[in-house]
Amino acid sequence: MKFETTKPEEIEKRSFEILTAELAGMGITLSGDTAPVIKRCIHTTADFDYARTMVFSEGAVAAFCRLVKEGAVIVTDTNMALAGINKRMLASFGSEAMCFMADESVMKEAKERQVTRAHVSMERAMRIDRPVIFAIGNAPTALITLREYFDQGKYRPAFVIGVPVGFVNVAEAKELIMETEIPHIINRGRKGGSNVAAAICNAMLYEMRERI
Amino acid sequence: MKFETTKPEEIEKRSFEILTAELAGMGITLSGDTAPVIKRCIHTTADFDYARTMVFSEGAVAAFCRLVKEGAVIVTDTNMALAGINKRMLASFGSEAMCFMADESVMKEAKERQVTRAHVSMERAMRIDRPVIFAIGNAPTALITLREYFDQGKYRPAFVIGVPVGFVNVAEAKELIMETEIPHIINRGRKGGSNVAAAICNAMLYEMRERI
Repeated sequence: MKFETTKPEEIEKRSFEILTAELAGMGITLSGDTAPVIKRCIHTTADFDYARTMVFSEGAVAAFCRLVKEGAVIVTDTNMALAGINKRMLASFGSEAMCFMADESVMKEAKERQVTRAHVSMERAMRIDRPVIFAIGNAPTALITLREYFDQGKYRPAFVIGVPVGFVNVAEAKELIMETEIPHIINRGRKGGSNVAAAICNAMLYEMRERI
Repeated sequence: MKFETTKPEEIEKRSFEILTAELAGMGITLSGDTAPVIKRCIHTTADFDYARTMVFSEGAVAAFCRLVKEGAVIVTDTNMALAGINKRMLASFGSEAMCFMADESVMKEAKERQVTRAHVSMERAMRIDRPVIFAIGNAPTALITLREYFDQGKYRPAFVIGVPVGFVNVAEAKELIMETEIPHIINRGRKGGSNVAAAICNAMLYEMRERI
């Protein structure tokens, strides 16, 4: 059994070199502050489609970093995304991440009102008395709920990472956020996932660490 | 805003119909007990590549289900995969899932011995006095470690789900498991992830539930 190295930090560095070279082979050169985000999505999925489908609102990466440093919290729509976010690094910037999806009271309320748990989870997040960055990797209804409240003038998310994955309502729900002036990072189309939502957060946290 | 439905169970059903129809359009008809597993990987990623790259050892799905019912435990190599596995359903069959990656003692030992945390985690799992199903969605070194111990006759995993994602050592590490007679489900090549590892487990758990 022969392997180049099994040291995690070397593997990660080499992985980014390989994927950057392959992107170049496809005629794609990524630059600016969005490049590390897109590359980490590719790193997390081995799927180069992300190089063509990621959408960033103007100044999105800088806005995310500023929010984290100013004490915004990240709310996810799955415990998987929550597990994937580097919470130690997030804490080093004075921020934290949370998820309400598995709360007993959320499940109970969703059942009673016959709405999705994601809908109720979003409502819970809206009551947090700090700015909220939503990291949505699963539920299109989370994005739909945010847009409804935004349209009614009841709530304005500080930031939306909108990367649910799927075949029904997903692409449409992402468009609902892109149409607004809410700062966002969206992966257009069907692809995404809890792992991608976490990767997007981590990519920006790692860049923030580099700059310290 | 017009959506067909936002009921999760209907969305899932419709999603599987759509992806099954699209597979047919590509000339791919999946059948047998591996079909729900492959389809759930596609459902989780919106990536149809999985229809062409998933590898199952002979009788793998039946073997996994038997192991779960006989009290085997699932050990993952990330807390993300652990978060994604339906632990309530797993418990209903008398099984459970665990992950040692974030244990302080694992981190300490890995640092001291200058090996990966995944390596130490696998060693911990080998000391469990029940059969272990390994669900590996991240670390190729986890698969390398399992193969090393297997070759030395020191340990035989009951089952390996080998779907790490990445660009360095990943495809090779998967081949190391496929070469053995250890029952396995592997996604050949670079793709996979913690979400895919969890999806594979859940697909089989859901089929077990259907059959009760």
